[in-house]
Amino acid sequence: RINGERLWDSLMEMARIGPGIAGGNNRQALTDEDAEGRALFQSWCESAGMTMGVDEMGNMFARREGTDPEALPVYMGSHLDTQPTGGKYDGVLGVLGALEVVRTLNDLDIRTKHPIVVVNWTNEEGTRFAPAMLASGVFAGVLDRDWAYAREDGSGKTFGAELERIGWKGDETVGARKMHALFELHIEQGPILEAEGKDIGVVTHGQGLRWIQCTVTGKESHTGSTPMPMRRNAGRGLALITELVHEIAMSHQPNAAGAIGHIDVYPNSRNIIPGRVVFTVDFRSHVPEVLSAMLEEFGEKAPQLCEEIGVSLETEIVGQFDPPAFDEGCVATIRAAAERLGYSHMDIVSGAGHDACWVNDVAPTAMIMCPCVDGLSHNEAEEISPAWAAAGTDVLFHAVVETAEI
Amino acid sequence: RINGERLWDSLMEMARIGPGIAGGNNRQALTDEDAEGRALFQSWCESAGMTMGVDEMGNMFARREGTDPEALPVYMGSHLDTQPTGGKYDGVLGVLGALEVVRTLNDLDIRTKHPIVVVNWTNEEGTRFAPAMLASGVFAGVLDRDWAYAREDGSGKTFGAELERIGWKGDETVGARKMHALFELHIEQGPILEAEGKDIGVVTHGQGLRWIQCTVTGKESHTGSTPMPMRRNAGRGLALITELVHEIAMSHQPNAAGAIGHIDVYPNSRNIIPGRVVFTVDFRSHVPEVLSAMLEEFGEKAPQLCEEIGVSLETEIVGQFDPPAFDEGCVATIRAAAERLGYSHMDIVSGAGHDACWVNDVAPTAMIMCPCVDGLSHNEAEEISPAWAAAGTDVLFHAVVETAEI
Ligand SMILES: NC(=O)NCCC(=O)O
Ligand SMILES: NC(=O)NCCC(=O)O
Repeated sequence: RINGERLWDSLMEMARIGPGIAGGNNRQALTDEDAEGRALFQSWCESAGMTMGVDEMGNMFARREGTDPEALPVYMGSHLDTQPTGGKYDGVLGVLGALEVVRTLNDLDIRTKHPIVVVNWTNEEGTRFAPAMLASGVFAGVLDRDWAYAREDGSGKTFGAELERIGWKGDETVGARKMHALFELHIEQGPILEAEGKDIGVVTHGQGLRWIQCTVTGKESHTGSTPMPMRRNAGRGLALITELVHEIAMSHQPNAAGAIGHIDVYPNSRNIIPGRVVFTVDFRSHVPEVLSAMLEEFGEKAPQLCEEIGVSLETEIVGQFDPPAFDEGCVATIRAAAERLGYSHMDIVSGAGHDACWVNDVAPTAMIMCPCVDGLSHNEAEEISPAWAAAGTDVLFHAVVETAEI
Repeated sequence: RINGERLWDSLMEMARIGPGIAGGNNRQALTDEDAEGRALFQSWCESAGMTMGVDEMGNMFARREGTDPEALPVYMGSHLDTQPTGGKYDGVLGVLGALEVVRTLNDLDIRTKHPIVVVNWTNEEGTRFAPAMLASGVFAGVLDRDWAYAREDGSGKTFGAELERIGWKGDETVGARKMHALFELHIEQGPILEAEGKDIGVVTHGQGLRWIQCTVTGKESHTGSTPMPMRRNAGRGLALITELVHEIAMSHQPNAAGAIGHIDVYPNSRNIIPGRVVFTVDFRSHVPEVLSAMLEEFGEKAPQLCEEIGVSLETEIVGQFDPPAFDEGCVATIRAAAERLGYSHMDIVSGAGHDACWVNDVAPTAMIMCPCVDGLSHNEAEEISPAWAAAGTDVLFHAVVETAEI
């Protein structure tokens, strides 16, 4: 078993970097806080005897040598970046849990045949630079590196320039590494495991996603003196589409989710009818047909609703992935590890996207989930118990050691 | 008649300060650009032989002496501040038109019995600091000076601190001045005069207004992994209230207007269900009973809609005035001036709020309107013709000279 106390101490130490305003974290990708978190992680990896490699997307790979120089490494990890109002565990548990596995291997003086690599993927959250899982997407060959460099944050700064600025642009070609397998430990971010009283979620599938960035254009004009029939209110386009997205997702329950999280109103003045509203629709399902059906219904109805109120709609897909099915062998390894350790477990579908979903395209991959309180995530109040963190990391430890072979 | 060419040149010169991004202006209250505009206006006033007084709210009063030292001055003016994406004429025409009246009086060497004062009111637009017509409201004794100083912009800067920073906090007690009468020339900001082919709107009444700042509180959580039935999406509260406001206003046509122009979403991340949305509802009517009926319906239905979707609603009135009826004598003077000058005219209700609406509480007041293209205002594309500007200013000239007596 791993050392749960040491793991928890590291989680709490990392959480001191980029504190939020309500007990959580604001350590968004490629900020100074991200750089500080990376440096701390690097120092811990080096103390644990690992050597660090960094690729051109800033992905960090800390390697522990294996006994067979020919064997491909077993990877484990997640991400250290957070939402602007994020929790202390989303992503971080997967990285520091992986570090704890290596520390435990060191304690027990266990050598594995395959090398082991702890990874921190860049910009998983996608809140500063859309899409989410940007750097693992480039690693998996699904997204283009130079396209990724050109992604802009809300203030027009590019991913490429910010990566250079914080000093974490490495030399390694992205995706050059070959993997024997990859395991990602992550909090569930949903309420199922807690409700079912299970310690471990064995993730068999994930939801697919589409982010549709919408620009509704009306006409800026005076809220007082523009007669009601002459108005072209872009805010009403947002309102009708907000409800449309909700209705579409509700008509596919329990296999779908839909909401709008990001909204920018122009010019955003109390006495100006909005002339333009830009927002991003987030649709998800683990059933490919449901995802397409939702997109189709949206594509038919949203422009129609806008037309009826005299505003226009432009859409652009700014994030997308299809529902992943994880490697059956890796999934079985996780299930067996939970069983062997005596942890209650169940198969589960991941509601959120994860770096493992992309890596799954290029290597045998699976995920371990642990519960989080009230299913709450992407909220500073996100919480887990030390026992849950330790159980998930124990399962990661066993799955990785079994796969890396002693 | 006034000098239309000189008036237009001054309008264009003022428009160079705080240029917008699409041909209009961004010269919001108490910014550096506002200070620059004020300085230019002051230099013009001094060149025209006037002396400047500034009160504790930054209201500027340029005085031309009269022949009777006992006589109360006749005031005319409007505001030089603009919306963030504002036009070149909203407010500015009323100030520079008034300046042109004085320049014409100088050209013609006309002395009036009553002194004449050209006024620039601070923060009419209310976009940076709510409410609108803040400084004329303090002048009229409806709003409190220290309460006004404490108004905050979006970044938390106060009106009082910003007024000091730009160096335009004067010594004069606000509202100490007594007025013989006040005339305000303004563009219509609506489509009626142009549609009816009239040169001049004789403003008899104005709309009343309520600004209801709403805070909808839900629960921030993950857009992918939070099951639909568990969501408390504050964005849906905004959506339902947007449509409610529209329906309420539509049910009182043609005597009402309603819209939401200002919307801030928290934390505004693509994969976080909004936990909080703050926005301002703008309701208007020139019929007092309609205004109260709208408020009542809103107060009943909005909290109910929020409750039904599991979010809560708090409201605060951040701007309000009742429908003004202008002084019948001043209104008649304007109508007679238009008639005498041979301009086509009609009586009209002001759709927007104006500084004159507050001053009307403490002095005989009326307004002159001139058309604007397509009724468009609060838009950088706001446009008027030089002939319209000259006609409005001619009427202002005649009304003021008649009231100030030769
Ligand atoms: N795990 C997680 O929150 N990832 C962000 C990408 C997503 O929105 O699913
Ligand atoms: N004239 C004008 O646009 N005033 C701003 C106050 C209002 O919103 O009516």
